[in-house]
Amino acid sequence: MRVFGIDCGTNCTGYGVVDLVHTARETRLVAVAAGGLKLQKTQPLESRLAYIFAELSALMELHRPAVVAVEEVFYSVNARSALRLGHVRGVALLAAALQGLPVAEYAPLTIKSSVVGYGLAQKEQVQFMVARLLNLERAPEPADAADALAIAICHAHTAQTLSLQAEARA
Amino acid sequence: MRVFGIDCGTNCTGYGVVDLVHTARETRLVAVAAGGLKLQKTQPLESRLAYIFAELSALMELHRPAVVAVEEVFYSVNARSALRLGHVRGVALLAAALQGLPVAEYAPLTIKSSVVGYGLAQKEQVQFMVARLLNLERAPEPADAADALAIAICHAHTAQTLSLQAEARA
Repeated sequence: MRVFGIDCGTNCTGYGVVDLVHTARETRLVAVAAGGLKLQKTQPLESRLAYIFAELSALMELHRPAVVAVEEVFYSVNARSALRLGHVRGVALLAAALQGLPVAEYAPLTIKSSVVGYGLAQKEQVQFMVARLLNLERAPEPADAADALAIAICHAHTAQTLSLQAEARA
Repeated sequence: MRVFGIDCGTNCTGYGVVDLVHTARETRLVAVAAGGLKLQKTQPLESRLAYIFAELSALMELHRPAVVAVEEVFYSVNARSALRLGHVRGVALLAAALQGLPVAEYAPLTIKSSVVGYGLAQKEQVQFMVARLLNLERAPEPADAADALAIAICHAHTAQTLSLQAEARA
């Protein structure tokens, strides 16, 4: 199963693609791609949104994931930041919808728990564990790319757990 | 000049298309189209965004405006509402950008001043004046459609004023 994680942000939006690979011996996670879409503050908002939309659409078309995973938004941010983040998140969700991909949302606490085993983990701990779980020499950069991989890993873990539970019941 | 006004909302997004027509005798405003895109709360967010994007894109392609006008957002709303509104606003701005249309933003106070002559006008006064300025028998429904027309009228008025000022200077 291939998961496309997106870490929406108004300065940089990270993406990370992860495969959950089943072999006879094990089930493991493989990093397929990761990166960050940096936004030019000097460009008008609508041009920035068009850029994110075009890039995410092209990446989804290239990697053909089964599902898109995003972070649920923390309402501790102020209204101004929430609106700006909403613009980016809106076009990211639209890119998924126009390619017929289902979208799964995970709370920040769930993502950290899934990757580090501890919901209140620091950013650095998440990046360290992302590299470790994906057998990478170092954490992917920018940090937003590592965060997007963490979201994708969270979905892969959740899907794996659900499938194991279903097997146990069968 | 044709203006496409959008009143972004999470329950219903209004649109209104207005022409600024110059004749030998006068300059007047003509309503071309107006309506509301109602969102189904039962649908997943990404499907609702895909619906708004498809409808707005089709309407822009049909009416071929010179410019798209939207309301600047009032930061008095809470972060949760701002994020939800941001999703809708993001795909509306994207629809304009993908058709190469410039986007103009106006503060609520500016829109009311432009239509009613008074920045703190009530919603009903705005609707009444929209109908009057466009020579309509009654205010268009839903209210979001009238609000979108008000945004378009505000842009038409502003553009007209700027052009008269430029003429006076020439």
